[in-house]
Amino acid sequence: MNPIDTLTQLFEKFPGIGPRQARRFVQYLLVSGQGTRLEIAEVIKNLGTETSQCKRCYRWFVGKSGTCTICSNPARDLSLLFVVEKDADIEPVERSGFKGLYFVLGGTIPLASEDTQKYIRERELLKRAETESATIKEIILGLSATTEGDHTRELLAERLRASGIKISALGRGLSTGTELEYADPDTISQALGNRH
Amino acid sequence: MNPIDTLTQLFEKFPGIGPRQARRFVQYLLVSGQGTRLEIAEVIKNLGTETSQCKRCYRWFVGKSGTCTICSNPARDLSLLFVVEKDADIEPVERSGFKGLYFVLGGTIPLASEDTQKYIRERELLKRAETESATIKEIILGLSATTEGDHTRELLAERLRASGIKISALGRGLSTGTELEYADPDTISQALGNRH
Amino acid sequence: MNPIDTLTQLFEKFPGIGPRQARRFVQYLLVSGQGTRLEIAEVIKNLGTETSQCKRCYRWFVGKSGTCTICSNPARDLSLLFVVEKDADIEPVERSGFKGLYFVLGGTIPLASEDTQKYIRERELLKRAETESATIKEIILGLSATTEGDHTRELLAERLRASGIKISALGRGLSTGTELEYADPDTISQALGNRH
Amino acid sequence: MNPIDTLTQLFEKFPGIGPRQARRFVQYLLVSGQGTRLEIAEVIKNLGTETSQCKRCYRWFVGKSGTCTICSNPARDLSLLFVVEKDADIEPVERSGFKGLYFVLGGTIPLASEDTQKYIRERELLKRAETESATIKEIILGLSATTEGDHTRELLAERLRASGIKISALGRGLSTGTELEYADPDTISQALGNRH
Repeated sequence: MNPIDTLTQLFEKFPGIGPRQARRFVQYLLVSGQGTRLEIAEVIKNLGTETSQCKRCYRWFVGKSGTCTICSNPARDLSLLFVVEKDADIEPVERSGFKGLYFVLGGTIPLASEDTQKYIRERELLKRAETESATIKEIILGLSATTEGDHTRELLAERLRASGIKISALGRGLSTGTELEYADPDTISQALGNRH
Repeated sequence: MNPIDTLTQLFEKFPGIGPRQARRFVQYLLVSGQGTRLEIAEVIKNLGTETSQCKRCYRWFVGKSGTCTICSNPARDLSLLFVVEKDADIEPVERSGFKGLYFVLGGTIPLASEDTQKYIRERELLKRAETESATIKEIILGLSATTEGDHTRELLAERLRASGIKISALGRGLSTGTELEYADPDTISQALGNRH
Repeated sequence: MNPIDTLTQLFEKFPGIGPRQARRFVQYLLVSGQGTRLEIAEVIKNLGTETSQCKRCYRWFVGKSGTCTICSNPARDLSLLFVVEKDADIEPVERSGFKGLYFVLGGTIPLASEDTQKYIRERELLKRAETESATIKEIILGLSATTEGDHTRELLAERLRASGIKISALGRGLSTGTELEYADPDTISQALGNRH
Repeated sequence: MNPIDTLTQLFEKFPGIGPRQARRFVQYLLVSGQGTRLEIAEVIKNLGTETSQCKRCYRWFVGKSGTCTICSNPARDLSLLFVVEKDADIEPVERSGFKGLYFVLGGTIPLASEDTQKYIRERELLKRAETESATIKEIILGLSATTEGDHTRELLAERLRASGIKISALGRGLSTGTELEYADPDTISQALGNRH
């Protein structure tokens, strides 16, 4: 296969990119010239050598130390552990003002799947809960409000029970800005169940 | 003004209708013929004579009796009162499986407004809470998750306190289907506050 | 059927209106009060008595005279006849600066249909072409660039041939604002065929 | 600046990519692992060495020969030259069935600009017209139907006049699928002007 088609296929795997836009990316790089191409190639190549995966929360960060800036920040609240599906979930949670620590699962578990470790860092999470059971007061299972997210949350809640740590889930209900007339019945049902 | 322009302006007041679609409605009626027009005009004229506003919940329904089919249904749970902004909010709540009664406020209170009765049926709600304080165990303030909805809810919660009835609000948080990565910080903050 | 359901069904026939919005229209009318309802009903009822269908072009207009304001305007160019599908097509053509006269077909002919008169005012158009063959220099078949529009145009072009009047079609090609990269191949093919 | 931010900024320059998606691309590459990153970096780096810019039409293609597959195809019609703004415009024109040759301008000329060569390959196009004036029977200026496209087309038409070759523009009018009611007045005006 020629480099134009190879690169198009590689770009098609980028999140949210279809064949058409993948081809436009290649066109863009062709027209940009060798200088731009070398710069991009260099940065992509070095991404791995200049970044590390945090040994505590498993997110990727810039640096060589074993733990990321959040995990190594003494001002964070060690008693709260927020479990997210992926690195990108951390940013909106940070913006919401959360001050505890994180753990990146790396995915969710498909409904029919048995080999859960294949999809998420279950073993690593259980081990952290065990090791830090004296420090962690609450594990917040911050999964998406989807069928697979619910499935993963229920499964983790059960397996984390032995740790003795309080396990919680994010509140479900009306999200900010929602008008009741346009809310789906399931969300209203959740909002009714979580009324306060 | 000619009838085409008059009718266009009347249609522009319909919910969600702009000048262009209002004009298309008039075109549709012009082409439809006098038979269709007379039928529509007749039904609109009779809407008032064949429907009534329920004396208990203030929603509009087809019939002549004083109370609507929900309010006069003996199987409904009289101990729960769900306060909604408008008639159209009732349908999604019904579909969520709610079995109590309703009260239609008729709107929300703008932030700066003092004359609250001008915007909502506050007096009528307070009176119902007073009269039925022995039966009603909980009033759910089912307002939209908007600034004006929040404002109206807080104001009503305060004024209903004297009734001694438990006042609740719909749960806030992730609505069904939401992925954490795309949730706004305010919704995450609410979901964190309402974690369970 | 009760008036709420009857009116909902009548509104569902309005152009571009689904069941949900139809129901919101009924809610709007219920809440609006009898005064508003009587006004709308009256205007709809009178639409027929205060408007007429033009005897020349068949469009609907406000007035009692036999011909509409465009057909009776001596400043219009009698030598150009612009054939449109429906009343609503006239407005954008007027805004484009066209100064001739119009003829409203009343629709397009479905592909498999034999009884063409059932769908469009074919007889009336042929008669007008015959009667005014001395005045009309060109008939512009201004149909939509859709399969049914093309079918209707081809059929009319053939049947109007006997009149001896020049029959033309609107130019096909790039519409204003189109970027070549996003144009569909059929449009490019037409634009190539009509290059000048 | 760290490699995550540098790469985010480089991705933001990709066509149609905003800061949010650029960040997601970087996340994707971080999680993908060094193997994937090295593969992408390698292909991007080699894009220049394995592709060439065609010496006749200036589009980029895979190969080392001086002219691209279209320009060196003896079956193409040498008498028709289709001038496009950019490489990506060629694909939809090919799908429309065009069988002639191409010339890639490299852009359009901004309205106020004087130094036209800075924006497009004007000199190269004029030279090709001069050199091949015996072979080329028609130059089709296939520019976008935008203000800048029109400006560039008019300017090129004038400068190419000396070549004696017939200069044409793509037809303007209703694009395939357009309904007259929703066409803008300028498009209707063009469609009227190009009626046939």
